[in-house]
Amino acid sequence: MRILLADSFPDASRSALADHGHGCDYEPDTTAGDLPERAPGHEVLVVRSTKVTAETIEAAADTLRLVIRAGSGTDTIDRDTAAARGICVCNVPGRNAVAVAELACALLLALDRDIAEAVADLRAGHWDKKRYSRARGITGRSVGVVGLGRIGLAFAERIAAFGADVATVARPERDEDTLARARAIGVRFVDNLDTLAATCDVLSLHLPATGDTRGLVNRELLARMPPGAILLNTARAELVDEDALVEAMETKGLRAGIDVFADEPGSGTGTIDSRLAAHPNVYGTHHIGASTEQAQHAVAAEVVRIVDDFAEGTVDHCVNLDAVLRSGSLATPLRVGDTT
Amino acid sequence: MRILLADSFPDASRSALADHGHGCDYEPDTTAGDLPERAPGHEVLVVRSTKVTAETIEAAADTLRLVIRAGSGTDTIDRDTAAARGICVCNVPGRNAVAVAELACALLLALDRDIAEAVADLRAGHWDKKRYSRARGITGRSVGVVGLGRIGLAFAERIAAFGADVATVARPERDEDTLARARAIGVRFVDNLDTLAATCDVLSLHLPATGDTRGLVNRELLARMPPGAILLNTARAELVDEDALVEAMETKGLRAGIDVFADEPGSGTGTIDSRLAAHPNVYGTHHIGASTEQAQHAVAAEVVRIVDDFAEGTVDHCVNLDAVLRSGSLATPLRVGDTT
Repeated sequence: MRILLADSFPDASRSALADHGHGCDYEPDTTAGDLPERAPGHEVLVVRSTKVTAETIEAAADTLRLVIRAGSGTDTIDRDTAAARGICVCNVPGRNAVAVAELACALLLALDRDIAEAVADLRAGHWDKKRYSRARGITGRSVGVVGLGRIGLAFAERIAAFGADVATVARPERDEDTLARARAIGVRFVDNLDTLAATCDVLSLHLPATGDTRGLVNRELLARMPPGAILLNTARAELVDEDALVEAMETKGLRAGIDVFADEPGSGTGTIDSRLAAHPNVYGTHHIGASTEQAQHAVAAEVVRIVDDFAEGTVDHCVNLDAVLRSGSLATPLRVGDTT
Repeated sequence: MRILLADSFPDASRSALADHGHGCDYEPDTTAGDLPERAPGHEVLVVRSTKVTAETIEAAADTLRLVIRAGSGTDTIDRDTAAARGICVCNVPGRNAVAVAELACALLLALDRDIAEAVADLRAGHWDKKRYSRARGITGRSVGVVGLGRIGLAFAERIAAFGADVATVARPERDEDTLARARAIGVRFVDNLDTLAATCDVLSLHLPATGDTRGLVNRELLARMPPGAILLNTARAELVDEDALVEAMETKGLRAGIDVFADEPGSGTGTIDSRLAAHPNVYGTHHIGASTEQAQHAVAAEVVRIVDDFAEGTVDHCVNLDAVLRSGSLATPLRVGDTT
C-alpha cells in the first residue's frame, strides 16, 4: 500500500513495511497544516500527534482508505468525516501504557523531591540541603487512580510497589482481569470521584477525552482535594479546567505534574503561552507520555501488523467502524479483526 | 538526660523526649564548627549530617556519653576518639532505607525523561516535544544494584515493578531473607562487579563507605559501562572517583543521578564548587536521600527509644562498642541491646 508516515517512525519498522511490499513516504516533520497537501495520493496515513482535519480527509479522499493513530487516543483525527468518506480510523491501544505510566511515576517522584529545582540550584553552585529536605515521601501516601484501563493499572502497579495506598472509584463494568490485578496490589475502591479527591494526597488521571470526561477536574473537584495535594495529568488536557487548577495552586498550594496542555502547539517545537505550564507549582513535560524508545518500537510493530492485515482485507482496532459501515462509502468489503 | 539536638528533629519526637523526662536543647542550625562550643554540658548529642570531630568530642568529654546519628552512616563522626573517651556512637539503621530507595528511583525516572530540562523549558515558554521524545523507558532495561542491604533491596523491589531486569553481584554471605526477597523479584546474580558494570544500562550504588569500597567506581570500572549508561549514587561520595566520572561523561556520554558529592558543604546551605554537581549530564540533589517526612518520623521515633534505653543502662545499635569496651573509659556499666 502507499503509506504516508507523517510523524517519526522507527527505522526497523519502516524497513519491515518496505520488506512487506508497501511504498512509504517518510515525512516526520509534517504539520497538521501541511497534511491537506501531503496526504493525497496515499492509501494509508500514519500519525502520532499530528492532527488530521476534515480538510486533510477531504483532500485525500480519492485514495485514502485508512488512517492509523500510532497511539491510543484518536480525538486528534476527524473520525466522522473519515467515516463519511469510507475511511477507517484505527488506533494502537495499550502498547504505550507502560511508557505513560512511567511518566506519571516520574512526575510524582520528581515533584516529591523537587528534582527540577535541586538540579538547577546545583548547576548554579547553590547548596541547599535545608530546603530540599522537606519531601513527604511516597510510602504510606494515598494515591487515587482515575481510570483503571491499561495505563491506569500500569501506574497503580508501579506506585503500589512504593508502598503507596492506591485507591480508585468502584465501577460495575470492570472485567475480571482488571479486578484481579487491582486486588493483587491491594487497590481500595471508593464510591465516587468526590470521595477519591477528598481522601487522596495524589490524584492521577488515566481517562480518554470524551463528552463525559471533559472538564472532569473542575473547580468543585479541586476544592475537595486536600491542601498541598498533587494532581497528575498524563492523559488529555480536556479533562482539566486549567484556570481552576491555577487558582487552586495559588489558594491552597496544590501542585501538579502535567504532560498535556490546552495551549500546546500541534507541532514538535514552538512556543507555548500557558499559565499552567509556566506555573512554579507545575512540573510540565512536552506531551511525551507515549514517547519512549520501548513504546515506539512496540507501537510501530503493531502499525506494521495493522497495515499488513488491512492489505489482506481485515481491519483491526477500527474506532469508527460502525459509522464507516453505515456511510455505505466503503470502497471494498472489509473483514473485522481485533476490535479493542 | 541532657540532650543536644544539633540538627532538625520532628516536633512530635521532641515532645516525646521531654515527656520522658529528658532535657533537650534544640539547635538545628548548629554547624560542625559550632559543636565544640555547643556540645559541652550535654550527655547525649544527636546529629543528622553535621560532622562530629575529635575537637567536639574532646571538648564535651566531661559530660558526653552518647552520640546518636539519626540515620545510617556514621563516617561523619569520629568514632575512635569517642571510644577512647568511653563515648558510645550509635546509629539508626534501616529506618531511612525506603526514602533513599525512593530518591534513587526518582533520579533514574527523571533522568530517563529529562524532567529537569523539560520543566525549565516549559516555564520559559519553549515547547520541544521533539527533543523530549528521546527517552529509552525503564521497562526491559538492565539495572545493576551494587549492595543488597536494606536500601539496595528496597530500590531493587521498586525498580523491578517497572519491568526492569535487576541484577546484582553474587555474595556467599547473604542471609536467607535477603535471598528470598531477591528471588521474589527475579534478581539475576552475576559473578563480579566488572560483569555487572559491563552488562547493565544502569548501576545504582547502595554500599557504606569503608576501606574496601572507597574509590570502587574508578576509571577502570567506568570504562566497562556501556556508552550512555546511568550511574546512581545515593550512598556515599567516597565510593566514586569524581574526576573519572566527569571524564566518562564527556568521552562516552555517561549520565548520573548523584545525591552525595565530595565537595558538599557540611552545613545546610552554602555554595558548592563541584565539576560533577554542575555537569549537564548530572541530576544532582542536596544529600537528601534520607530526608523525607516519613523517614524522619521513623528515625526520630527510634532515636527516642535509643535515648530511653540508654538512660536505663542499655545501649542499642552501638557502632564503636568493642573499642569503647577495650578503652576501659566507660563511666558506668552498660548492657548491650540491639546490635544491628
